[in-house]
Amino acid sequence: MAKPTPLSGFPEWLPDGRIVEQQILDTLRRTFELHGFASIETRAVEPLDQLLRKGEIDKEVYVLRRLQAEEGDSTDVGLGLHFDLTVPFARYVLENSGKLQFPFRRYQIQKVWRGERPQDGRFREFTQADIDIVGQGELAFHHEVELPLVMADALASLPIPPIRIQVNNRKLVEGFYRGLGIADTAAVLRAVDKLDKIGPRKVHGSLTGELGLTDAQADACLALAEISAEDGSFADRVKALGSADPLLDEGLDELTRVVEAAREHAPGLLVADLRIARGLDYYTGTVYETQLVGHESLGSICSGGRYDDLATAGNERYPGVGMSVGVSRLVSRLVGQGLLTASRSVPTAVLVALPDEESRATCDRIASALRRRGISTEVAPAAQKYGKQIRYAERRGIPYVWFPQADGGHEVRDIRSGEQSAADPTAWTPPAEDLHPTVTGGS
Amino acid sequence: MAKPTPLSGFPEWLPDGRIVEQQILDTLRRTFELHGFASIETRAVEPLDQLLRKGEIDKEVYVLRRLQAEEGDSTDVGLGLHFDLTVPFARYVLENSGKLQFPFRRYQIQKVWRGERPQDGRFREFTQADIDIVGQGELAFHHEVELPLVMADALASLPIPPIRIQVNNRKLVEGFYRGLGIADTAAVLRAVDKLDKIGPRKVHGSLTGELGLTDAQADACLALAEISAEDGSFADRVKALGSADPLLDEGLDELTRVVEAAREHAPGLLVADLRIARGLDYYTGTVYETQLVGHESLGSICSGGRYDDLATAGNERYPGVGMSVGVSRLVSRLVGQGLLTASRSVPTAVLVALPDEESRATCDRIASALRRRGISTEVAPAAQKYGKQIRYAERRGIPYVWFPQADGGHEVRDIRSGEQSAADPTAWTPPAEDLHPTVTGGS
Repeated sequence: MAKPTPLSGFPEWLPDGRIVEQQILDTLRRTFELHGFASIETRAVEPLDQLLRKGEIDKEVYVLRRLQAEEGDSTDVGLGLHFDLTVPFARYVLENSGKLQFPFRRYQIQKVWRGERPQDGRFREFTQADIDIVGQGELAFHHEVELPLVMADALASLPIPPIRIQVNNRKLVEGFYRGLGIADTAAVLRAVDKLDKIGPRKVHGSLTGELGLTDAQADACLALAEISAEDGSFADRVKALGSADPLLDEGLDELTRVVEAAREHAPGLLVADLRIARGLDYYTGTVYETQLVGHESLGSICSGGRYDDLATAGNERYPGVGMSVGVSRLVSRLVGQGLLTASRSVPTAVLVALPDEESRATCDRIASALRRRGISTEVAPAAQKYGKQIRYAERRGIPYVWFPQADGGHEVRDIRSGEQSAADPTAWTPPAEDLHPTVTGGS
Repeated sequence: MAKPTPLSGFPEWLPDGRIVEQQILDTLRRTFELHGFASIETRAVEPLDQLLRKGEIDKEVYVLRRLQAEEGDSTDVGLGLHFDLTVPFARYVLENSGKLQFPFRRYQIQKVWRGERPQDGRFREFTQADIDIVGQGELAFHHEVELPLVMADALASLPIPPIRIQVNNRKLVEGFYRGLGIADTAAVLRAVDKLDKIGPRKVHGSLTGELGLTDAQADACLALAEISAEDGSFADRVKALGSADPLLDEGLDELTRVVEAAREHAPGLLVADLRIARGLDYYTGTVYETQLVGHESLGSICSGGRYDDLATAGNERYPGVGMSVGVSRLVSRLVGQGLLTASRSVPTAVLVALPDEESRATCDRIASALRRRGISTEVAPAAQKYGKQIRYAERRGIPYVWFPQADGGHEVRDIRSGEQSAADPTAWTPPAEDLHPTVTGGS
């Protein structure tokens, strides 16, 4: 075969990049579990009608077909790869509702796929890390306060630049529009959501044009989107714009509670930003986006919101709130720009040097003794000159080389410092920071 | 929507089953890393021509299509989901050969897909855990001895019944056939591989029929397949069958080395079984299968072998040896039969009881103090009567409930024993065995 080349949109990491990704995933998992979220995984495929019922994203689904499907065999015809983890989770909750305990707190870390046009240079396969809490029948509002704080803890545990969570509330926006006398609030939301892309002039034109708003209504909608604040002060600014509606009041109250709770948890972490809309139409309360400070061009690295009607079958109803980290995009940026690096490309802490091929069994026993105490160890693959064996370790970043001595003794060398000393394979342990690869980085 | 139902062949676990699966995957990963294997992941898709060049499996590929692909846009037409992790790994090695260090030791834990006919009741999505070692140009034989011992360590660390690894060698079998004067050795291998399915009489008929072997040749082929031994004694029994060929001698020597090394490592673990063939045609040396003792009906739970020509492009050649654990099948059997159970369905060790909704901030601070010391903690979702809050913990298997006292003090109750005592949220720690869910089981 010819030497293969990468497939655009399907990222893969070299072993050292993968170590960075693993440590990020391990840290997210540990934090989610500390907060009592249980892991689940869902199958990669969902029935197409499920995937497509949420509008917007229908251009991006990969459909499956069995290569050798018989003529007329339509069994698999309706299956597509999931494009997020929220829709499959809602289906999982409905399917297993009798066997789950509610409120159900789950995290889910999996690949998702989007059938983007390849020339757009976007990821077509990427890893997401989601947390959601769903209730049976109802879900208390305080979970909308809790969720961004869990995510903030998780992201703050990573060796990445600081984050800023932007929060808005669908009730606030919809109530505000209603209070202005606007009927088709969803259409106005979609138009205002284009602010960042096309600018206020064009949005204004579209509001007063196709959507038939008055100049004053359009001005108020744009003024609302301009408001942001790190504390509850946004509420008075919203009220000053002259709209009034019970739903607006509810939204203002909810957003205030999220912002004030976050301010107590970690000042500056979370900001009310009334421009945030979120593309997906299933959100019904608080919505979240997250910027990596200094890397705003990445877009939101962690988004989500409250949804009331996603998991609903007959009389059963499971409202939820969730957030999702786009792990691949984060790793790609941070590894690609050299902002996160692994201390070595292998888990190995010790290479046992091989004096000659006849000593392999002896060296294997040394390695076993080290592994028994949790020290990742390899035996050199060939009895080359010691200089070559040391270079084998160096090229991989393995910090220690172990030398069995002719008299049955042992020496171990830190190949970074060159320091070498006698050691006992049943007792010697490297410093904790050398036991596993470390990932370092920062702003 | 209607209440959804499971999709045949796409297994999903409830949270407690997932805890079992996670602990199995974590243990495999830890063991692989202890032996110096680096993690990689490959994309889920490969070009179809890659997936199909290895024969046999071509019926089972899922092909992708973008739902909204424009007429004539053929960009994604040639992509299929990978059906194993060996073919993608070979491609990854070729693609990144200039950036990898050889011999390259990697593990890979991912989902794979097979487009089986749904009515066959087989898994169409499942998780595999693979280890492989590939060399550049050559790969020393001792890695064929090493690999099953690594896998045995990994499987022995799991709370599962004991395993038995069956080993054969393609050189031995091919050399034996050649020594009998058989030309199309591959066809004979395929015929003998059907022994378990169709029995010796039918195999004999097919050997002397379509394949034109003499009765004596067919007898010898079947006699070879009957041989098995836990030590090197198989070699004399093979030689007694009257075939002779240099390749046979090489195979006998290799298989003897694998068996003898394993016998030193753990007697009874590994057996030479000359019937083992492996379906895939890319193996060129040692081949492995693994039985779970007492669950032989499961089939092989961990298989693999040596391959010389899988990763080859132009003059570049990367021979390798690998083994693959079928994790989903294992988990499905052990969880399904109740042989492995998790001590609880959530990671949570402590539920902080909520006296009233006004105390939520106080309870959140208690939870934070516990989490800071690695104790997974939830705050009760609602200020119900304490009896109901305790049942919330019971239903999930959460062992401890924390009660903030009106005087600012604290008490913690082990709800299994009912024992309750004063505790300090900044100092109290549960016994180590209660910190995380435990998985118990056995034969």
